[in-house]
Amino acid sequence: MPELRRDPVGGRWVIINTDYPSLPEDFHREDHKFRAMTCPFCPGNEHMTPPEVDVIRTKSSKPNSPGWQVRAVPNKFPALEIEADLDRRGIGIYDMSTGVGAHEVIAQGPDHNKEISDLSVSEVVNILSIYCRRATELAQDKRFKYVLIFKNYGPSAGASLEHPHTQLIALPMIPKNVAEELKGATSYFRFKDRCVFCDMLRQEQAEKERVITENKYFIALCPYVSRFPFEVWILPKKHNGYFCRTSKEELPELAAILKEVLLRIKSVLNDPAYNFIIHTTPANTADMEEGYHWHIEIMPKLTRTAGFEWGTGFYMVATPPEVAAKYLSKPATKVDS
Amino acid sequence: MPELRRDPVGGRWVIINTDYPSLPEDFHREDHKFRAMTCPFCPGNEHMTPPEVDVIRTKSSKPNSPGWQVRAVPNKFPALEIEADLDRRGIGIYDMSTGVGAHEVIAQGPDHNKEISDLSVSEVVNILSIYCRRATELAQDKRFKYVLIFKNYGPSAGASLEHPHTQLIALPMIPKNVAEELKGATSYFRFKDRCVFCDMLRQEQAEKERVITENKYFIALCPYVSRFPFEVWILPKKHNGYFCRTSKEELPELAAILKEVLLRIKSVLNDPAYNFIIHTTPANTADMEEGYHWHIEIMPKLTRTAGFEWGTGFYMVATPPEVAAKYLSKPATKVDS
Repeated sequence: MPELRRDPVGGRWVIINTDYPSLPEDFHREDHKFRAMTCPFCPGNEHMTPPEVDVIRTKSSKPNSPGWQVRAVPNKFPALEIEADLDRRGIGIYDMSTGVGAHEVIAQGPDHNKEISDLSVSEVVNILSIYCRRATELAQDKRFKYVLIFKNYGPSAGASLEHPHTQLIALPMIPKNVAEELKGATSYFRFKDRCVFCDMLRQEQAEKERVITENKYFIALCPYVSRFPFEVWILPKKHNGYFCRTSKEELPELAAILKEVLLRIKSVLNDPAYNFIIHTTPANTADMEEGYHWHIEIMPKLTRTAGFEWGTGFYMVATPPEVAAKYLSKPATKVDS
Repeated sequence: MPELRRDPVGGRWVIINTDYPSLPEDFHREDHKFRAMTCPFCPGNEHMTPPEVDVIRTKSSKPNSPGWQVRAVPNKFPALEIEADLDRRGIGIYDMSTGVGAHEVIAQGPDHNKEISDLSVSEVVNILSIYCRRATELAQDKRFKYVLIFKNYGPSAGASLEHPHTQLIALPMIPKNVAEELKGATSYFRFKDRCVFCDMLRQEQAEKERVITENKYFIALCPYVSRFPFEVWILPKKHNGYFCRTSKEELPELAAILKEVLLRIKSVLNDPAYNFIIHTTPANTADMEEGYHWHIEIMPKLTRTAGFEWGTGFYMVATPPEVAAKYLSKPATKVDS
């Protein structure tokens, strides 16, 4: 019979279909159809974006011209605007605020057709370094309470551009989902004097059922309370609240495991759309890091969110994480990009 | 510049694109493509579903045979099972429960091609009556804490069958989203001694900017804190915590406004996929109804939920509700089904 599982951090319940699990071939993959257009992120088209705010490029090359490996620019159509005053007010029973924030795009590389899974580990290290540098710089702005780094791959995951890219949004308040995770993790820490994620890691390493791969500093697993089929989390093995405190020694290991996991997802699930999100302790807050443990959540887009999920916050999960882990624990066969 | 708005009930923030609002023609509508199959809900195929649990049918017709107007059956592939014991346990740091619950499908009418917007008001009254009867009956089972009634229309809203139908799920716990709404509404009530939804109605009726239509007992509006473009809520004007306490006198007015709103959405947005959800006070809980106000939330599926939404719980809303209301406040021209 189906199994209900409760997320030990946020208290969310999911319904796992343990009797008739959906296997990779049961999901219909949508085509990655993008509008035909001149790519603003391809080398030579640098004038199509706002000027770069950070970049890794060859020494001989000039700003806003080809020769870059990773390039961060403000979003041309930002969801929030950086040049504005934070103004909050009430309108009758409602509350509003001016849309202050930053919205940047990180072009992951010059090649229009090479995603993280196709790049070398050192190229992925460059991408992660820019994530970190941008998040650190934006956190200097005291108006911002949270910096979210996330990737939409494929139109059905919300991507509107094909060129490999990641987005970064700095927000003037801690978002609800993050606040709930922090609250849950902090309560657990106060009760047990241990980090809930560290406890989870220990249990997963002992049970082995949901671990898909690990290296010296990182582990990748299908979480016990997955919300989506074939969801994967990557966590540092050593407690660390902040993504940006990942050390120079750890970075290549993180790049390697991220590349490997994305390659396996691409191979096992026939190149699905996906989102990944870096979950980290908020910027400009004190004393929250001991109970929180930064990690990456990767969510392949295999099913549609429907009325039940919107109405309840429950998720119906067609593939138990134990089954997903069996598929994803095999090393990836090289996939054509 | 963009505007951040905070939901006065749950505290969720949304980002409204007030500068460049998306208009109906800016959304790409996906085709409603269903798998070709024999329809289990068409008259004559009653043997393809489990036996009916409730029905409105002609007096001369026999159970589980043609002659019905509205027919409720258990879901053949239930997400939760009714014949089971509620068994909760811990597994290390995790918590699980057996998947006890009810999962029913309500076939809205015998005609495979007639949705609520195409039916007569009295036919819609029959549908709403069955919603109410099933929810009331399931609430008698003390294992159930919440009965959710929801509709997925179109494959991109999660529907897997084409025949017009609604789903009903009884859950052994109050789901997270509902609990948050109740908590917010109850806090407001304790602070102000007034229902937050009643206050919202008064403000909306005074400002008129977001009201799209109203009749004697009900009002339809685009909420100030919409999470989706062209989202519409239908609320009873008189305070009422429970959907199932809608009176016989009110029911035809509810049917009329629901039909009218769905017809307008179909006409203005070119027959989009949508979800609707009935939000009501939980079953088997005391003293929660004074602060809560039942309502229907209708969410056209015009955009994709992406990494930003998953990571934050924020929503980016491409069409301000004030703009959506302008389009939806015109009476519908009759649309071919």
